[in-house]
Amino acid sequence: MDFTISTKGQDYLDRVKAFMKDEIFPVEDAYYKELAARDNRWVVLPIIRELKEKAKAQGLWNMFFPDETHGCGLLNSDYALIAEETGRSFIAPEIFNCNAPDTGNMEVLIHFGSDAQKAEWLPRLMSGEVRSAFCMTEPGVASSDATNMAATAVVEGDEVVLNGRKWWSTGIGHPDCQVAIFMGLTDGDAHKHRQHSMVLVPLDTPGIKVERMLPVFGAYDEPYGHGEVSFTDVRLPKSAIIAGPGRGFEIAQGRLGPGRVHHCMRAIGAAERTLELLIRRAISREAFGRPIAKLGGNPDIIANARMSIEQARLLTLKCAWLLDTKGIMGALSEVSMIKAVIPQMLQAIVDQAIQIHGGGGVSDEDFPLTGLFAYARALRLADGPDEVHRAMVARLELKKYAK
Amino acid sequence: MDFTISTKGQDYLDRVKAFMKDEIFPVEDAYYKELAARDNRWVVLPIIRELKEKAKAQGLWNMFFPDETHGCGLLNSDYALIAEETGRSFIAPEIFNCNAPDTGNMEVLIHFGSDAQKAEWLPRLMSGEVRSAFCMTEPGVASSDATNMAATAVVEGDEVVLNGRKWWSTGIGHPDCQVAIFMGLTDGDAHKHRQHSMVLVPLDTPGIKVERMLPVFGAYDEPYGHGEVSFTDVRLPKSAIIAGPGRGFEIAQGRLGPGRVHHCMRAIGAAERTLELLIRRAISREAFGRPIAKLGGNPDIIANARMSIEQARLLTLKCAWLLDTKGIMGALSEVSMIKAVIPQMLQAIVDQAIQIHGGGGVSDEDFPLTGLFAYARALRLADGPDEVHRAMVARLELKKYAK
Amino acid sequence: MDFTISTKGQDYLDRVKAFMKDEIFPVEDAYYKELAARDNRWVVLPIIRELKEKAKAQGLWNMFFPDETHGCGLLNSDYALIAEETGRSFIAPEIFNCNAPDTGNMEVLIHFGSDAQKAEWLPRLMSGEVRSAFCMTEPGVASSDATNMAATAVVEGDEVVLNGRKWWSTGIGHPDCQVAIFMGLTDGDAHKHRQHSMVLVPLDTPGIKVERMLPVFGAYDEPYGHGEVSFTDVRLPKSAIIAGPGRGFEIAQGRLGPGRVHHCMRAIGAAERTLELLIRRAISREAFGRPIAKLGGNPDIIANARMSIEQARLLTLKCAWLLDTKGIMGALSEVSMIKAVIPQMLQAIVDQAIQIHGGGGVSDEDFPLTGLFAYARALRLADGPDEVHRAMVARLELKKYAK
Amino acid sequence: MDFTISTKGQDYLDRVKAFMKDEIFPVEDAYYKELAARDNRWVVLPIIRELKEKAKAQGLWNMFFPDETHGCGLLNSDYALIAEETGRSFIAPEIFNCNAPDTGNMEVLIHFGSDAQKAEWLPRLMSGEVRSAFCMTEPGVASSDATNMAATAVVEGDEVVLNGRKWWSTGIGHPDCQVAIFMGLTDGDAHKHRQHSMVLVPLDTPGIKVERMLPVFGAYDEPYGHGEVSFTDVRLPKSAIIAGPGRGFEIAQGRLGPGRVHHCMRAIGAAERTLELLIRRAISREAFGRPIAKLGGNPDIIANARMSIEQARLLTLKCAWLLDTKGIMGALSEVSMIKAVIPQMLQAIVDQAIQIHGGGGVSDEDFPLTGLFAYARALRLADGPDEVHRAMVARLELKKYAK
Repeated sequence: MDFTISTKGQDYLDRVKAFMKDEIFPVEDAYYKELAARDNRWVVLPIIRELKEKAKAQGLWNMFFPDETHGCGLLNSDYALIAEETGRSFIAPEIFNCNAPDTGNMEVLIHFGSDAQKAEWLPRLMSGEVRSAFCMTEPGVASSDATNMAATAVVEGDEVVLNGRKWWSTGIGHPDCQVAIFMGLTDGDAHKHRQHSMVLVPLDTPGIKVERMLPVFGAYDEPYGHGEVSFTDVRLPKSAIIAGPGRGFEIAQGRLGPGRVHHCMRAIGAAERTLELLIRRAISREAFGRPIAKLGGNPDIIANARMSIEQARLLTLKCAWLLDTKGIMGALSEVSMIKAVIPQMLQAIVDQAIQIHGGGGVSDEDFPLTGLFAYARALRLADGPDEVHRAMVARLELKKYAK
Repeated sequence: MDFTISTKGQDYLDRVKAFMKDEIFPVEDAYYKELAARDNRWVVLPIIRELKEKAKAQGLWNMFFPDETHGCGLLNSDYALIAEETGRSFIAPEIFNCNAPDTGNMEVLIHFGSDAQKAEWLPRLMSGEVRSAFCMTEPGVASSDATNMAATAVVEGDEVVLNGRKWWSTGIGHPDCQVAIFMGLTDGDAHKHRQHSMVLVPLDTPGIKVERMLPVFGAYDEPYGHGEVSFTDVRLPKSAIIAGPGRGFEIAQGRLGPGRVHHCMRAIGAAERTLELLIRRAISREAFGRPIAKLGGNPDIIANARMSIEQARLLTLKCAWLLDTKGIMGALSEVSMIKAVIPQMLQAIVDQAIQIHGGGGVSDEDFPLTGLFAYARALRLADGPDEVHRAMVARLELKKYAK
Repeated sequence: MDFTISTKGQDYLDRVKAFMKDEIFPVEDAYYKELAARDNRWVVLPIIRELKEKAKAQGLWNMFFPDETHGCGLLNSDYALIAEETGRSFIAPEIFNCNAPDTGNMEVLIHFGSDAQKAEWLPRLMSGEVRSAFCMTEPGVASSDATNMAATAVVEGDEVVLNGRKWWSTGIGHPDCQVAIFMGLTDGDAHKHRQHSMVLVPLDTPGIKVERMLPVFGAYDEPYGHGEVSFTDVRLPKSAIIAGPGRGFEIAQGRLGPGRVHHCMRAIGAAERTLELLIRRAISREAFGRPIAKLGGNPDIIANARMSIEQARLLTLKCAWLLDTKGIMGALSEVSMIKAVIPQMLQAIVDQAIQIHGGGGVSDEDFPLTGLFAYARALRLADGPDEVHRAMVARLELKKYAK
Repeated sequence: MDFTISTKGQDYLDRVKAFMKDEIFPVEDAYYKELAARDNRWVVLPIIRELKEKAKAQGLWNMFFPDETHGCGLLNSDYALIAEETGRSFIAPEIFNCNAPDTGNMEVLIHFGSDAQKAEWLPRLMSGEVRSAFCMTEPGVASSDATNMAATAVVEGDEVVLNGRKWWSTGIGHPDCQVAIFMGLTDGDAHKHRQHSMVLVPLDTPGIKVERMLPVFGAYDEPYGHGEVSFTDVRLPKSAIIAGPGRGFEIAQGRLGPGRVHHCMRAIGAAERTLELLIRRAISREAFGRPIAKLGGNPDIIANARMSIEQARLLTLKCAWLLDTKGIMGALSEVSMIKAVIPQMLQAIVDQAIQIHGGGGVSDEDFPLTGLFAYARALRLADGPDEVHRAMVARLELKKYAK
């Protein structure tokens, strides 16, 4: 048994931590102020482009790829701890070219894309020149049941025609966002896991309209954002279908594992940051003659937060290690478990941090807690609500008893 | 035993419900859209003034006063159910001239104000011409311990001089807000419950500055708002001290009971509205071939919400009835209990409603749930955090065993 | 609104409290010791018979009947508070002839029994000479679904023949227990609420065998006990069917309301007793220089217990008041709510009391907490598990939205 | 990173699993029945002695020792998984000579015992011929604060004199129990961690009296049991003090780490067994036409159980690994975390298993759930209540911010 990161992973982790400390944390406040002062916040501020160049120059770039061709050859379990570190700052993932959904989209292209698709998009995504979106969730139906999906990707001769309305397409507001992966129903008569297709669609294709950007507890998360997008008779050559018609679920499943680990480890980083805020506040304020850190149930809150973070991290690392050693089929339950556990854990800790901050806790101007709360709350719904993941865990558990 | 509202109360309740249904709910959407479209949202839109006149004309005005001279002679337990009804809409309380902190401030003036103070402010507050604020909480100290208060109200000859910084002064952004009650330290050597004074201070007095309006999860709650206010050598005649120096805690305690009942009953109204939203969504969406209302743990969520609302309402009604029959000293524990129980209950139900709404649940544009969440979350801190109220309940419980 | 007991109820409550204080609490310890010392604990000790006579002589007898013919003419809401008081001692209910399942069984006889059935059994049950059992739950099937019931009550000519196995037949170990109400399937083809019958069956009828007495966390609750009973070709005249074949569910529903209130109010009495034990321990023990009542999260535990008891009591009293004023059909949701809420509340408080008692908390010899725990735990299953009651509350809630 | 057991550990684990499957599980029922049928249950039944011999012959003996001299040279992290396996049966630990408190007592002797102490006791403890007890907790004081300890171990010339009353001395009822480690106050004026001594005391020393055996939810856990023991002027040569006067806390700390891991891993084994019972019942019973495993919130219960077991196990394994690699000082927080987390987790799962079993769940005769519940409940108090461990975790967390 060994709970340590690999030597190589440690080296990258050290360098990422140093980069965060030296380059990112010091500029965060100024960055947000400058962005907030803009009339149009859907822009990439120069500091971000600068930091991206710096990170790239230092080789802290595309670290999420497990192979050395595209990335740095880090194990999922190594990168997990790096993702945790980047989760301490909302702007960090982009700076290292490690932000969702680009990470998952690049993986899809590598594993399922045609040569032409790879040639056209991969270099630009990997260089950070271009961003992408993932269009799956729909406003009109309960997304917890994927078979509800109403959007269509119908093959007509040499073309595929996309119709439907998607929302929570994260990152689509980014000025560099030029392409999306769209999922839609192709053949309702096929086996239920062969009905849907994923289509790679440039966002300047006629018929695509970003109807609006969606707020999350009032915040639009500029310049990334979450879009509601309509697709009206969007026509593309049939070759735009990734891996061919009907392979949407297969691709979705392959895309799933590492992405969940990244999300969850970033959320753990956010939880660590939140606990730090909580404790710093709790030791700096006094009531009844003692720091509130020592008052009433507050030590329990601190201990419970520490205990749930530690457990959540270990579960996620084990999941990453299973992906490394056994692949997605060996990590099916863990991949669902972490998604059910971590966002809820983060939400609970942020809620307690708000309580300990008093009035300041609910003011976005004073502390980042409302933003962290919104992030946690949305994460309990993104990529499937908690309920769906618990149901999957239960199903796999019952399966052990089936004969 | 009788769990019914009085005949008179029922009459008012019926009329308030009809008014809500006929006049308020139908205009809410348009109201919010019009307000959102304004460059300056710190205004009273004409529809509000119109509705106030209508409500006043129908006698649905100042219903919170228990006496017939100032109000309608309703019992606290009668008015509680009316407050619940008004809690279903954020704009309703002002329309009935029943919104905090004006209700509490008017009560303070009636019970502790001098004839001159009453003559100057009461008619205008009671007519709804003028609004007021309450300046107690401070940004620099943990408010859970009232003795932390750093602001001062020092008597110098015939004058009282106010200094300090307050925040979360609710309603101070309202264009009609002209006066505030300020609480500050007068004599640090006096008995600990005789050190502070409340001072009635017109907001145009030199030295008062609203430094900024505070966001709650990004929302400013225009046109009411929550202000951070600095008081710098604010000089007033000594007669501005309500009931004389050192009586701040005594007044605060008298102000406390009915205000808590109002807050909590409005929160219960908000919880009912939230549960209605939750259920309507849950029966209108399907997954796996069934409405999500019937899926997995969702029936439990609905049942638990119903059970906690029912219990919370009964506790608050009993508290109101104790105030009616035994006064604040007979309701000390209940007044703390409801404040510890109800906001937390509301937050839990809103959180579950968000979950059941999926992505739409976190979008302010689509559902009012994020606003309800922010309201619940802030209420767990306003007027003392949960912790303080639980501590009071425990203290009173232990007192029963002291000899 | 009025949260007080009636004058008449108050008089009875005062007298019951005095009786508990003067007659029951002082003998409890000796009673349990004497019983424990017996080889055969399935006996009625003389002190119980004496106290029964005393209670009867004082008119504190059969107080659960709402009418004056059989009982004292107390409202359900009055008797509820008396039931709470008797819930403080496990032996009290029998002493006042107010213990389950005799209370419910007597009600069934009065409302549904034939003249002959009444004549034969009612006087002896009402005098406390005879006890009864209720045979419904079965070991072989999930009782949460009543249609699962496998036992049969088949009409053959002039006879009804009972077959099947029942368990958790409470009170069947009592030496005075002579009769039971048995529920079984009569006609599987009838409407689903007309398939079952209730049969009044003397326990000396051939074919009935108490297979064993069941322990609850190791305790047999002598001399009442919970039996597993087999019925093998038990033949009775058809007139033994209460109200005629197929009316089992109808009778069950009528039996339901007041019984739930009694159970829940006794559990609230047990919760009050537990909280008292918890606090007395917490103020008598010190750690780190302070009574543990003031340590860490313990004040929260005390406050939360007080708040949940208060709310639970109010909910139950409202349920009782609804039964008084609107009957069972007006209290359907409340009757389910209390059963879902109160036993779980009691269990949580007992668990915390155990924790605060330390090692002594788990030792039956030192404190009554393990017995209270077993009582609470079993109550979450008796008369339907929590899940069934929450499901009913949810169903009734959804019904409000059905059109 | 590597989450697997070592090759050597795997070999032992496989053999332990086989032994459990082939030798222990098949005899459990008969063993308990035979024991229950005895008038005197404080005996070692022949089957236990046989199985001990078999285990010893297979080298599955004293596996908890990390060294090869005394044990098998297994890492703590290896043995942890073996302890989990033995936690599935209450009788297994003794059979492998791996049961508390003998494990900890042997460790103490090895690390702190004098040559004479070792020579006298170690061979017999290691051979399983003799058992031991640990006398620390006291009935008269809150044990959460160790400085409360009232028992004394006073040095008088060449002797040490023990006085005081201890309880929850586990294993003291065992017929082979011949020696105990007693902790008492030696010098109240010394530094607070140098005041207490541990004394090795043969149980036949005059002045020692087992006053009674304590029940845990009615069960005496024969033939081990938990004793209340009085020490009255028990005189021993001064050499009986382990490592010399005043070193009690130092020894306690050293004893602490591995013991906690063993306790917690056994509890995890018990949790796995409980979850298996829960699921087997849930798939074998039907209600409303479906197995109750799929009904309502039950899948969530199963998923939550799985997720909390997985996290708890990982936390405990990491703690074991830290002990292996960094020693107790590198695992201080984790050693407290696991004790706060695992027993509570086990209790929650057993409670849910009881609920899913319905009435059978509370009957000790039908399912082992009440026994598992009592075990979990007691474990939340044994070796320090949850509160103490959470407080330690919080203290260590705050320490990170101290400068």
